[in-house]
Amino acid sequence: ADAEAVQAAVARNGQLTKPPGALGRLEDVAIWVAGWQGTDRPHCERPQVIVFAGNHGVVAQGVSAFPAEVTVQMVGNFSAGGAAINQLSKAFGAAMSVHALDLDRPTADFTVAPAMTEAEVVAALATGWAAVDPEADMLVVGEMGIGNTTPAAALAAALFGGAGADWVGRGTGVDDAGLARKAGAVDAGLALHGPLLGDALQVMRCLGGRELAAMAGAIARARSLRIAVILDGFICTASAAVLEKAVAGSLDHCIAGHVSAEGAHGKLLAALGKEPLLSLGLRLGEGSGAALAIGVVKGALACHSGMMTFAEAGVSGA
Amino acid sequence: ADAEAVQAAVARNGQLTKPPGALGRLEDVAIWVAGWQGTDRPHCERPQVIVFAGNHGVVAQGVSAFPAEVTVQMVGNFSAGGAAINQLSKAFGAAMSVHALDLDRPTADFTVAPAMTEAEVVAALATGWAAVDPEADMLVVGEMGIGNTTPAAALAAALFGGAGADWVGRGTGVDDAGLARKAGAVDAGLALHGPLLGDALQVMRCLGGRELAAMAGAIARARSLRIAVILDGFICTASAAVLEKAVAGSLDHCIAGHVSAEGAHGKLLAALGKEPLLSLGLRLGEGSGAALAIGVVKGALACHSGMMTFAEAGVSGA
Repeated sequence: ADAEAVQAAVARNGQLTKPPGALGRLEDVAIWVAGWQGTDRPHCERPQVIVFAGNHGVVAQGVSAFPAEVTVQMVGNFSAGGAAINQLSKAFGAAMSVHALDLDRPTADFTVAPAMTEAEVVAALATGWAAVDPEADMLVVGEMGIGNTTPAAALAAALFGGAGADWVGRGTGVDDAGLARKAGAVDAGLALHGPLLGDALQVMRCLGGRELAAMAGAIARARSLRIAVILDGFICTASAAVLEKAVAGSLDHCIAGHVSAEGAHGKLLAALGKEPLLSLGLRLGEGSGAALAIGVVKGALACHSGMMTFAEAGVSGA
Repeated sequence: ADAEAVQAAVARNGQLTKPPGALGRLEDVAIWVAGWQGTDRPHCERPQVIVFAGNHGVVAQGVSAFPAEVTVQMVGNFSAGGAAINQLSKAFGAAMSVHALDLDRPTADFTVAPAMTEAEVVAALATGWAAVDPEADMLVVGEMGIGNTTPAAALAAALFGGAGADWVGRGTGVDDAGLARKAGAVDAGLALHGPLLGDALQVMRCLGGRELAAMAGAIARARSLRIAVILDGFICTASAAVLEKAVAGSLDHCIAGHVSAEGAHGKLLAALGKEPLLSLGLRLGEGSGAALAIGVVKGALACHSGMMTFAEAGVSGA
């Protein structure tokens, strides 16, 4: 981040027509974005939402309430404008795009083999990297992939320790037996790939998925472009965590858009030191929670960059 | 609320392309607005933000960090477009208006006399009533009035019990001595007007203020027009609470936009059974927290009214 822009934004914030600190977290958000955009008047006029879709071999373990065919059907829904993320992108003026990653070629079931080859994980990372619009001034990445809370839980367990049961949740709505199958699948994956899991990118390759790797690639690309990122829910956050474990500080350009209802999301955010902007019980994925948080970020930046100072407005200070 | 529209909205919600419940609180918000608007496709296309301003005799007790002249100066800032609420209204497409209520004639200091005469409180209620645009499809009311967290705390104490110290907070930033003066002023007001305080409208007259009464008037008018209201912070909520105490259920058309950093706001919302949408440490007033929550409500309604159903999108259910 640009220390000079941060300093200028802090100074500006102190002169705006409000009691000091009265805009609470909005003030912190504006100053933080100022640092990444390198200006004391940060903006969110060209937000971009990218949804990545992938399929997962681990669905063979009975880890989802929905059939795998729903992934491609939902990609059709995204393209037709009918999903939640379409409405939220439109509501907050974001340009939305969808990238389906080899849906007819699911990853391998990570309980029996690495989810991806090196070539596959690199291709997915590159898809994410290339998907970011360099002109965007805010980025949301989301996902669609039936079964993908299980690879996300596996990433979290491999990166932060603990067993499957510590990280799995209900996802789209599995019952107790499904939850137990998810935990068992994660444990099997951790046992099978254990020797490789000291390396964060091997964690992504062995236990992740194409859309998870693509999200990580896009978040890394945003960093190189100094575009601030709003993180979505459990799967997005787990994917981002791979970057943080690979290079500490990799997620300094990311803010947590919300904490989802997926059981372990709060714990994962805490492990990353991220405090969510929203807590509304969402657990949809697609980038929906982060897209909703675009509104909060827009509000924060509108106040910071648009308000008059005490001097400009002729208002007496405290 | 319209039970038939609620039922239709619940049915529609169950058919949208998402796992059941996956949009969390957004689903509840959309169904609730559907009831007030009497349609299964609720909308927030014409939100209205009204800021009421008033001055307070009780500032003579040293209850604010800012001088009383700031009220009229901030009204100038609202009119010039320079305040936080201007930026937030613009960001969320709301029409904003400002009503200054007799700023050169503050209310009486409620520690020595009733804040308002009957004619004054009725005039303020009527100003609020008349300020609502019947064509609006969502309403936010906010306030500006140096010293007005003290009358708000007095309303809360009179309506829900407890002493001044239970309800006063730092407001725009008073120190410990200022906080003690606020508590003392509330206690003095409760003692002086005690015999009248069993009647909610007498509570408003004796302890409230013009902008507080105007907010209550606008909220009551919105109810008559079936316009849903997003409540702002402590002062707005205390004003609204007068209606609830006068007639139970009067605030069924209101949702809590946020919980503010003003100490007792959370307690006041709990007393009214309202769960806030946002918790971001705001304590500015002006309607700012509620205006920020327009974004959340817009997102909720966009999803509910814009998404395709499983059948429309050709997506398989669980």
